[in-house]
Amino acid sequence: MTLTKVVLSERDMPTHWYNINADLPAAGVELPPVLHPITLQPVGPADLAPLFPMALIMQEVSTERYIEIPDEVQELYKLWRPTPLYRAVRWEEALDTPAKIYFKYEGTSPAGSHKPNTAIPQAYYNKQAGVTRLTTETGAGQWGSALSFACQAFGIECKVYMVRVSYDQKPYRRSLMQTWGATVVPSPSPQTAAGRAILAQDPNSSGSLGIAISEAVEEAVTREDTNYSLGSVLNHVLLHQTVVGQEVMKQMELIGADWPDVVIGCVGGGSNFGGFAFPFLRENLVNGRRSRIIAVEPLAAPSITRGVYAYDYGDTAKMAPVAKMHTLGHDFIPAPIHAGGLRYHGMAPQVSAVANAGLIEAQAVPQRAIFEAAMSFTRAEGILPAPEPSHAILAAMNEALACKESGESKTIVFNLCGHGHFDLGSYDAFLQGRLEDYEYPAEAIERSLANLPRV
Amino acid sequence: MTLTKVVLSERDMPTHWYNINADLPAAGVELPPVLHPITLQPVGPADLAPLFPMALIMQEVSTERYIEIPDEVQELYKLWRPTPLYRAVRWEEALDTPAKIYFKYEGTSPAGSHKPNTAIPQAYYNKQAGVTRLTTETGAGQWGSALSFACQAFGIECKVYMVRVSYDQKPYRRSLMQTWGATVVPSPSPQTAAGRAILAQDPNSSGSLGIAISEAVEEAVTREDTNYSLGSVLNHVLLHQTVVGQEVMKQMELIGADWPDVVIGCVGGGSNFGGFAFPFLRENLVNGRRSRIIAVEPLAAPSITRGVYAYDYGDTAKMAPVAKMHTLGHDFIPAPIHAGGLRYHGMAPQVSAVANAGLIEAQAVPQRAIFEAAMSFTRAEGILPAPEPSHAILAAMNEALACKESGESKTIVFNLCGHGHFDLGSYDAFLQGRLEDYEYPAEAIERSLANLPRV
Repeated sequence: MTLTKVVLSERDMPTHWYNINADLPAAGVELPPVLHPITLQPVGPADLAPLFPMALIMQEVSTERYIEIPDEVQELYKLWRPTPLYRAVRWEEALDTPAKIYFKYEGTSPAGSHKPNTAIPQAYYNKQAGVTRLTTETGAGQWGSALSFACQAFGIECKVYMVRVSYDQKPYRRSLMQTWGATVVPSPSPQTAAGRAILAQDPNSSGSLGIAISEAVEEAVTREDTNYSLGSVLNHVLLHQTVVGQEVMKQMELIGADWPDVVIGCVGGGSNFGGFAFPFLRENLVNGRRSRIIAVEPLAAPSITRGVYAYDYGDTAKMAPVAKMHTLGHDFIPAPIHAGGLRYHGMAPQVSAVANAGLIEAQAVPQRAIFEAAMSFTRAEGILPAPEPSHAILAAMNEALACKESGESKTIVFNLCGHGHFDLGSYDAFLQGRLEDYEYPAEAIERSLANLPRV
Repeated sequence: MTLTKVVLSERDMPTHWYNINADLPAAGVELPPVLHPITLQPVGPADLAPLFPMALIMQEVSTERYIEIPDEVQELYKLWRPTPLYRAVRWEEALDTPAKIYFKYEGTSPAGSHKPNTAIPQAYYNKQAGVTRLTTETGAGQWGSALSFACQAFGIECKVYMVRVSYDQKPYRRSLMQTWGATVVPSPSPQTAAGRAILAQDPNSSGSLGIAISEAVEEAVTREDTNYSLGSVLNHVLLHQTVVGQEVMKQMELIGADWPDVVIGCVGGGSNFGGFAFPFLRENLVNGRRSRIIAVEPLAAPSITRGVYAYDYGDTAKMAPVAKMHTLGHDFIPAPIHAGGLRYHGMAPQVSAVANAGLIEAQAVPQRAIFEAAMSFTRAEGILPAPEPSHAILAAMNEALACKESGESKTIVFNLCGHGHFDLGSYDAFLQGRLEDYEYPAEAIERSLANLPRV
């Protein structure tokens, strides 16, 4: 029974974030400008100033390859970083595969996922800029709890608009945010014009991430003391998450692992995938490596595999900036799959651009199959994955089983971006046979095309 | 913002468990023999053979000071060990105390607590002995999930008798055990004579840990292929947990910390406390150290502070061995506090003996105060503690606040033995003001005295 874990020392933690924008032009990939939601003209830093501190706006548009991580952020990272990398030896045995499977584990953070990697620097830069309140949205609660934790660390007030259906169905996540001192409001709420407009149409609206973003953005725009914070999609968010991929490369080197043939991450808004995969993508682009890099999304919200690559709003009420991205349409509300963190209509512009350029692959997978893969994994390795990373687990399993067929001994690495201790209701539903598969409805494609902004 | 975390390298992990039985005689502490539940005569190894493999029985009675940890167990420990030690700098600031507070964090294990430290070796030794099935009991589910995980790792069947009230109220813990492949039965159940007897008296019995132990023991005794596994109380269980305290001592040395003035652990059955504190107690006994060592128990189940030190049964149906321990009486059912892991009528014989000899202190604390302390802690340090270690947090806070009064800069260390991600319902109740304080009822003392076995 061999078991392999690689823990970096704190000395070996990355001191810089990696910015893929520096390497895209040479690869022939263009990142189109972000547009103002009303004028549909390219936004400048001043347009974003009501939402974000200037340091984050500068990161958003930076083409510097490596951006230094502030000391205070590095110190707080050490609360749970560096995180371990494992070789899944027992799972390899269970799958009877000649493949070598490695996984990074981000579930040891206080919030149980990779989200604090960006919550901490976002709170830090806002604090530096004198901001005393932050608003944000949250679906299942992963991001909201991460930001609540980060705000608490820097003494910033935090207000979270939580999608109504999750607010009612997942009180535990709400309690976690409140325990860390945040104010949590079910969305749509009567506290914003956006919320009131939705409630006027449907007083019983169960909400969506797009609506909650509208409310959080509206409050930040209309209050002087308040900024907005987003947990995915934007360049600076993906930037902060690159500590994950950089650590993995160092850990694989330390353990003498082969260079990965396949790099796999789940993808919803794109921050987990970008943070994990972009350091590897750079090696493909710049240093002649040939890893296949696979983004795995739910069949219920398949923005890369079934959406269009076009300009669209980031939110339902059309208040957030307009970006060119893979989108299912800003008014598309994904089916209630248990991987709440992947229920978003759009996709990070950076991930969309490299997908559009064919530099990465994408797969869409159904819900029941990801729970089956999660069961296979946890019964071998012990760690219980959240439904989101279970998308990556399924893809890794399929690769490993293909190796069994072909006899190849490929090296596969994936990111296990959060534990499933908050998701046992979902496992319970799976064990009792109550889980459904959802497909993105074909008729929604036409609607999404019809409602895109005309740029 | 200084933040201090000490992670040992795997090379520095303990290679042996520490057995306090080796050091008790020189300290004048006698550990009275364990008695057979029917004959009330001292048990020999053969009496325990229907329950445990011989390797564990030998550890139970061993007086060897250091017992080697098998390679296979060390390898599995590495799935999450060594665990981090932190200096709680931000909490010190929040409390405005000159005290230095350190805490060990055991919440990074797959089950979220320290319990796998003994589940893994127990499953290992049973596997070595050719045992293919294990039974156990669980209250809130921490132990049951740890053993499910360990059995899965060694390919052993696992059957868990789960206290009925938890089975109904905490389906998520049940799902975790089932996810890891265990069979979970609500106790009392019709599957055992002990369960049927209880159900005959009260078909709606909500169960207790003592009843669940009776059922699990009965099944192990009556089935050839099945052994029993206990998550606390017994010598070999506390032995396995000493990896925790040994790591802490190494980590404090590495970081150049002062020798602790105060060592604090929560105590229910005694395994967390023993594993954490006994390596420090040895330094008091043998090397002239003078740490105060404090066991913190709930006011609702105050076996050390309010019970008697006497021979009593480990379970309700009087099937488990009889040990001399601090007890509230084997038929006492503690109030439904949220720290389910501390709801036991008895106390580990080793902990009882050193408490009786005045070598450690004990405190009993009420429920609401421990949640207030947990809130103070998590808002400063980010990590969300389970209600059980929040007992230790409250005691540490009180010590730190006393230092503020006296101006002393004491060094305090406590064990944060599990995360609170499974306990958010309890936090929710606290935040909504729905938590009650329970005191051990005075009239129960007389009953406990009346029902003790006459030895």
